Order: sequence, then C-alpha cells, then structure tokens
Amino acid sequence: MILSGTRTRSIWVNPDGWSVGIFDQRKLPWSVEPMRLTTADDCAHAIADMATRGAPLIGAVAAYGLALALRVDAGDEALDRAYRQLLATRPTAVNLKWALDRVRAVVTRVPEQDRAAAAYADAAALCDEDVAINEAIGRAGLEILKDLAARTPDRPLNILTHCNAGWLATVDWGTATAPLYMAHDLGIPLHVWVDETRPRNQGALTALELAGHGVPHSYIVDNAGGLLMQRGQVDLVIVGTDRVTRNGDVCNKIGTYLKALAAHDNAIPFVVALPSSTYDANTADGASVHVEERAVSEVLSIEGPDQDGVLRRIAVTASPAANPAFDITPARLVSEYITDKGRIVGAAALAEAFGG
Amino acid sequence: MILSGTRTRSIWVNPDGWSVGIFDQRKLPWSVEPMRLTTADDCAHAIADMATRGAPLIGAVAAYGLALALRVDAGDEALDRAYRQLLATRPTAVNLKWALDRVRAVVTRVPEQDRAAAAYADAAALCDEDVAINEAIGRAGLEILKDLAARTPDRPLNILTHCNAGWLATVDWGTATAPLYMAHDLGIPLHVWVDETRPRNQGALTALELAGHGVPHSYIVDNAGGLLMQRGQVDLVIVGTDRVTRNGDVCNKIGTYLKALAAHDNAIPFVVALPSSTYDANTADGASVHVEERAVSEVLSIEGPDQDGVLRRIAVTASPAANPAFDITPARLVSEYITDKGRIVGAAALAEAFGG
Repeated sequence: MILSGTRTRSIWVNPDGWSVGIFDQRKLPWSVEPMRLTTADDCAHAIADMATRGAPLIGAVAAYGLALALRVDAGDEALDRAYRQLLATRPTAVNLKWALDRVRAVVTRVPEQDRAAAAYADAAALCDEDVAINEAIGRAGLEILKDLAARTPDRPLNILTHCNAGWLATVDWGTATAPLYMAHDLGIPLHVWVDETRPRNQGALTALELAGHGVPHSYIVDNAGGLLMQRGQVDLVIVGTDRVTRNGDVCNKIGTYLKALAAHDNAIPFVVALPSSTYDANTADGASVHVEERAVSEVLSIEGPDQDGVLRRIAVTASPAANPAFDITPARLVSEYITDKGRIVGAAALAEAFGG
Repeated sequence: MILSGTRTRSIWVNPDGWSVGIFDQRKLPWSVEPMRLTTADDCAHAIADMATRGAPLIGAVAAYGLALALRVDAGDEALDRAYRQLLATRPTAVNLKWALDRVRAVVTRVPEQDRAAAAYADAAALCDEDVAINEAIGRAGLEILKDLAARTPDRPLNILTHCNAGWLATVDWGTATAPLYMAHDLGIPLHVWVDETRPRNQGALTALELAGHGVPHSYIVDNAGGLLMQRGQVDLVIVGTDRVTRNGDVCNKIGTYLKALAAHDNAIPFVVALPSSTYDANTADGASVHVEERAVSEVLSIEGPDQDGVLRRIAVTASPAANPAFDITPARLVSEYITDKGRIVGAAALAEAFGG
C-alpha cells in the first residue's frame, strides 16, 4: 500500500540486501518511523516491546530473525538459540511458533553455508504467502463492493469498519481493508467510516492507512455508526476477526457486536474478513471463548500529541473501570465471510471449506 | 445528592441569603468548584459560557438571574432588560424561556418592593418542582429495581447507563439516575456500568456523581456494553432522553440506540427516564427529528489532566471526522418509560398521559 507517498509493505529487506525494515508501531499513528533490524536480538525486542504487532507480521519478523541469526552463525546451536529467544517473546502467539518451526525445518535440511540464504528465501516466501491470502480475501470482498457500487451509481459507496484489520497488522493489504484498497485502486468511488475503537483507538491506524493511500474516510466515535446506518449512510460493514468458531461466531475487537446488531436492524450487509488460519474448528461457539480482560489503564487514560506535538498521557476519569477486549458477534448476524478461499455463507460452508 | 461528603443540589442560595451558587461545569469532572453568582450578568455569562448546562438547571439559573436583577432595581425597565439579556444567552432553549416567562408573570403581579422576594420564592419553587419531577421518575424506576433485586438476592444488581442524565444536569436526583440513588439509599446492592459516552465523555460526570454518593460503579468504553449484556452482567439499562416523539421514539445521546439493540437482543429491559416536558407530541416519529451535527473538534481531540494534574488537550487523529450528536432508539426497543406520571408502556399510553 501507499504511505507517505511511497509504495511499501509493513516489512521489507533494506537496499543493503540483508537488514530488515519495519515501522515502529509504538510511534504510530503520530509518527511513521521505519526501524532497522540487524540481529535476531533486534527482532526479538521488536516483538516483545510491541514495536511490531499483528499475528502475520510477528511471524514474518521472527522468520527474518532466524535469517539474521544464521547470517552470523549458521550452526545448529546458534539456530536453536535464536529459535528459543524469538519464541519466548510472545509464547502464546500461534503464528509466531508456526513461522519459526517452518523456517527451522527448511534450514535444517540444507548445508550450513546455505542456511542463511534459505532462511531469507523462506521468510520472503512466508511474506508473499500472507500477501496472497489478503489479496484473495480482497478479491472476494471486491465482488461485494462491485455489486453494491453498481446499485448506487450516483454516489460513493459508504463502508464502515471497526478497529484496524489493515495492512499495518499484516504484510500488505490487510484483511478487512483489502477490498477497500482494491476497489479504490479500480476507481470505484468509496468513503470509509472509521470507528475510533476505544479504548486503544486502533481506528487512528486505519485512518492513517486510508489517508496514506488516498481513500476518502471519516473518523467517528464508536457511538456514531448506529445513527449512520439508520440514516442510510452505510452500505456495508466489513470487519476483521481474531477467531471464528466452528458455528461461525465471530470473536473480534470489543464493540463489533454492537455494529453487527445495527447492521442487521437496518438490513445492511455485515461481512467478516477471515483468513483460513483464523478459523477455529476446535471451539464450538462464541460462548466458549474466554474473553481477555485487559488493563484498565487503557480505559482510564489516553495518549496523544498536544498542540506543540509533545506526546502526553491524560486521565479520562478517576473512577474504577473494566476493560473486556473482545465481544462475540453471533453467526446469525454475519451476512458472509470473505476468505482466502472465496466468499462463504453459513457455518456449514465454513466447516466444509476449512475442515470443521 | 452527596458530593465531596456534603449533601447538595446543583443550584442553591448561599448562606448570605441572596447570592446563588452553582458548580462550574466547565471544570468538572476534574475539579469541583462552586461558583458564586451575584448579578443577572453573572447568570447570563454562566449560561452562555456553559458554566451551567442541562435544561432544568439553565431555567433555574435564569430564574435566579431575574431575582438578582430585581434585588438591585425592581422597576419594569430593569426587569425587561434582565429578561432579554438572559433569554439571549441560549435562544433555542425552550426551558429557559419557559422559566423566564414564569417568573416575569409572577413578579409583574406584585408591587415593586415585593418583586425581588417574589422572584426568589418562585425560583426556589421552580427548583423544588424540578426535584419533585425527578423524585417521581425515581420512584417509578425504583419499582423496577426492587422487582429485579428480588429476583437476584445473591448478588448486586447491574445497571448500565449512557451519558449523564444525572443530578448535575438537573437540580437534584437526575432523571435516569434518580432510581439508582433511591435504591442505593434504601440499601439495595447495585453496581452501575457507566458508558464513557464519546465524544464528550459525559460518563465521567456520571462516574463523579456515583463516586460522590458512594454508589459502586465501573467506567467502561462505549464498545463494552454489548459483551457485558451477552455475558449476563447487565440486568437493566436506564437512559435519559432529549426528546420522545409522539410514537415513543427516543432521541438521546449518540450511541443509545446501539445499547438498546443489545439490550433487546439479550432480553434485558431498556428503560427511558422521561420528564413530561421532554415528550414532544408535535413530532410524529424519530425519523422526523433533525440530528444536530456538532463540531468535529469534539472527536478530534480530548482534554484531561496529565500526570502532574495540568489540563492538556491532545489530538486523537489527524483525519477528517464526523460528529452526529444524537441517535434515535425506536419505540419497539423501549421496554417502558419511567416518568413523573409513573411507569408507562407503549406510545398510546404515552400520548394519553402527556396529551398526544
């Protein structure tokens, strides 16, 4: 996608041919700062310190971390050390372990002198595969947008999205945003309502992405979407997901359920962008999902630049607070899933496509 | 209600017997500062500069403004000047004009030497009447809370509210909060989920009220209520309203509709606190209500104290924004209205009670 006038991905190999670049996500959206990773150590710190985030992206950073380690020492011991160091950064991140296991399996099959090159090649392949997944999701969603646009030739399409399921959390395109970028690139006029997404305001990341790529959009508080739908100002809702259970229930950022209810109440399609890897056949339904309760400090204070550009953290209230991170959108409220295996309607078809 | 350990109303005559006290609402919730009004001028500025807010409270301040003017000069010309000055502060506030007309009618009937006293007496009566209205709403809501508490003897009742329909916006009790204070004062264990209510975060005022009066509560982002309802952690939703149309549709702070949808989806009663004066028999339904679009600066920045207690305004995003102020909760989602004429179910009964 385009950011600051330059076409970019969220992870890349620098022109030096070996060091790795990412955007420091701790600085976003206020400052877009590339960060140069030169060692496995750098990669481990970037993951542990949240300089990078998003399951696919964390996997890619870890994969390049192995490559950077092997570049210095391609022996089994060094490989094992880097593997363990990188894995320890986020022990519960499924995608992280998957990526590390994959690259390790590839490099242990080749002689030591070829290991670094093999790791770089596999890390690059892993990134390209993630891009391909998002492109496939994008194409599925693009069909929907084209259909809707054909029905509203006199005005731009209005799409509402919640949280950041965008390219900054993947390697490129994003999941929920891929169809939007594709439609925009094809010249389909559209405008995106960007939910703020309190408490962490990931909507500001989505807004940054859309602004960078030139997609018309408006930032709104999470309360606003219902009225916009009532007033006919939303044609489609697209969101990402952290997990879809066997019955099609959607676990996603807190507040998603409220938008799904409003979309249903106003007969507006509610679409979930779902990479195969996010389908969880082992969990029966949303009621079985444990919802993480995050630190109340996320609710009680908020950070941003003051008028002089100095980052400040201000208090929101002095009262006690609660901070559940996700909610469950029941499958009955989901019009369809756009996936890397195409458009899917209903839990039975999901299970068939992804193996329930 | 109780604030900072003292029983208080939101407007009072000071111990000197003539000057008037209010809380400077511009400083809330960060600082609770009484403000002394000694002239009609003070009252006009307090209204115009938003040091006071809430329809009933603005009316009361204006009424006392006439009293303060007449205290200095009880002649017709001075009365007329004060009337016009106070009315001009918020020309569209219906309650303001109603209060001014009422006090003027009273004082013009008595000799000049009795006018100031008559104005003070009528302003006090006007305040007492507002308190009585909120008490009546509170008693209606209290019945509901008592019923619910009887069904959950083993745990506190959980009530969710949106925005600030509390005593800080009325003379005492508040509308949506009156039943909560009454139940708490009776020893019914309850806990209140306080919606933040972006963009202006009036939830912080509700939280301040509840904290002051000792009512257990938790501040939550506007996104959280849906999950809490899904998980059985909400027994009742109570909100205030800016206007109820003839068919029972509820115009209230943006985001109310989303909570009503979630309450309905989870079979949780959704109750609207409605003073008679807020029923609008002249508007057929919510679709006919013009929804005010407020300044986007409310969305794009937020103010609060930093760690040193210095008030700072920080940016939320640099993107374009939209800021609709209200949404419409359709009558079909409202379980009942609690009013100064008791509990009312359905639009027909509303019209009968209030004259449709």
